[in-house]
Amino acid sequence: MAWASLYLALVHYPVYNKRLEVVSTALTSIDLHDIARSAKTYGLRKAFFILPSPSQRELARRIMGHWLAGYGASYNPTRREALEEVALVESLGDSVEAVERAEGERPVLVGTGARARGEMVTCRWLREQLAAAHLPHLLLFGTGWGLAEEALAWADYQLEPIRAGAPAEHAYNHLSVRSAVAIILDRLRGERDDPDGSPC
Amino acid sequence: MAWASLYLALVHYPVYNKRLEVVSTALTSIDLHDIARSAKTYGLRKAFFILPSPSQRELARRIMGHWLAGYGASYNPTRREALEEVALVESLGDSVEAVERAEGERPVLVGTGARARGEMVTCRWLREQLAAAHLPHLLLFGTGWGLAEEALAWADYQLEPIRAGAPAEHAYNHLSVRSAVAIILDRLRGERDDPDGSPC
Repeated sequence: MAWASLYLALVHYPVYNKRLEVVSTALTSIDLHDIARSAKTYGLRKAFFILPSPSQRELARRIMGHWLAGYGASYNPTRREALEEVALVESLGDSVEAVERAEGERPVLVGTGARARGEMVTCRWLREQLAAAHLPHLLLFGTGWGLAEEALAWADYQLEPIRAGAPAEHAYNHLSVRSAVAIILDRLRGERDDPDGSPC
Repeated sequence: MAWASLYLALVHYPVYNKRLEVVSTALTSIDLHDIARSAKTYGLRKAFFILPSPSQRELARRIMGHWLAGYGASYNPTRREALEEVALVESLGDSVEAVERAEGERPVLVGTGARARGEMVTCRWLREQLAAAHLPHLLLFGTGWGLAEEALAWADYQLEPIRAGAPAEHAYNHLSVRSAVAIILDRLRGERDDPDGSPC
C-alpha cells in the first residue's frame, strides 16, 4: 500500500464563533496532547497548530517544552514522542509552505466540518486517493464553531461531515474537534481487517 | 436496522498506573465533555463515569451542574444535552445494575484496551452483533494505563485494539481515552456510505 504523506492543521484563525463571526480562538492545551497522539498513531508527518498570535504560540511552546525537555519528557516519553510531531505556525499559508518545502510539492488541501457544504467527497474516496496518490495531503480542522469561509476557500476538496447511523431522535452532531480528528484519521488510515472494507 | 441499546463506562477504578499497579485515577474534566458528546452523537443510552470516591463524584457533579443548570446551560446548550447522558456511579457493578434496571436484561460487557489479550473480537463482528442482537451492550474503557485485570474479568468479550495501518516505523499506539472512545463508537455505529462497508 502506497502512503501519500498526510498532514493536518488545527486552525485557530480564521474560524467562526457561535454567532458566526470570524474570530481567532484561544489554544486549548489538551488539543496539543490529544491531536499529537492521534497524528502520531496514524502516521501523519506533522500536525500544524495555526496560531496567529505570538503570545499564543509562546504559550504552546511552554506547554510543549515541559513535555519535550522538562521533567515531563522522562516521566511520560509517549507524550514527548507525540509532541515532536507538532509544528506551531502563524497562518494557514505558512503550513502549506512548510509542507511544500518538506515534500517538494504543494499539498492537496482538504476541508472538514460538521456542516454539509456544496459538493463533498466521501471518506472512502479520500482513503482510496491517499492509498493511490503521490501528492501530499493536508487536512484542515477548525476550532470554535468551525472553519470560516476564507479558510475553506483554500481547500481543494471538502470532506463529508461525520454522521452516526443513529435513529433520527438521536440526531446530534457536536463532537469535540479532538474526537473529530481521531475519527477522521481512523476512517482514512485505520487498519482494515478485510481486504475490501474500511477499519473494522 | 435494529439498534441494540449501547452503553459505555469510563472506568477510574480498577485501572493500572504506569507501573501496572492497580489504582483509582482522578477525574479529567474534559473527559466528561468529550465522551458525553461522542456518546450522544452515536446514540448511546448512557455514559457511566465510574468514580468510587465520593469527593470525585461531587467534583464531577459540580462541573456538570454548571453546564446543566448554570449559566453554561444557556450559553452552550449542546454541552448540556450531551452531559444529560452522563451518570456518575460508584462501581462497575453499579453500572451493570443500572443497565439491567433500565433494560430488564443484563448487558453483554465488552472490554477495550491498547494491549492485545487472549481471544479477541473484531469491531466488525461486534458491529454486526449490535445490529442483530437484542441484548444491551456495555463497553468498558479504562483511564490511566488501562483496565486492570479485575475489571477485564467482568467482560464477556474483549475488543481488538485500535490499529492504524501505518508503516512499522510509525508503530505508536498511545491514543487518549477520549480519542479511543470516539474511534470505537464510530467503528461500531458510524454511518456507512455503502450497504456492505463500515463508515467511509
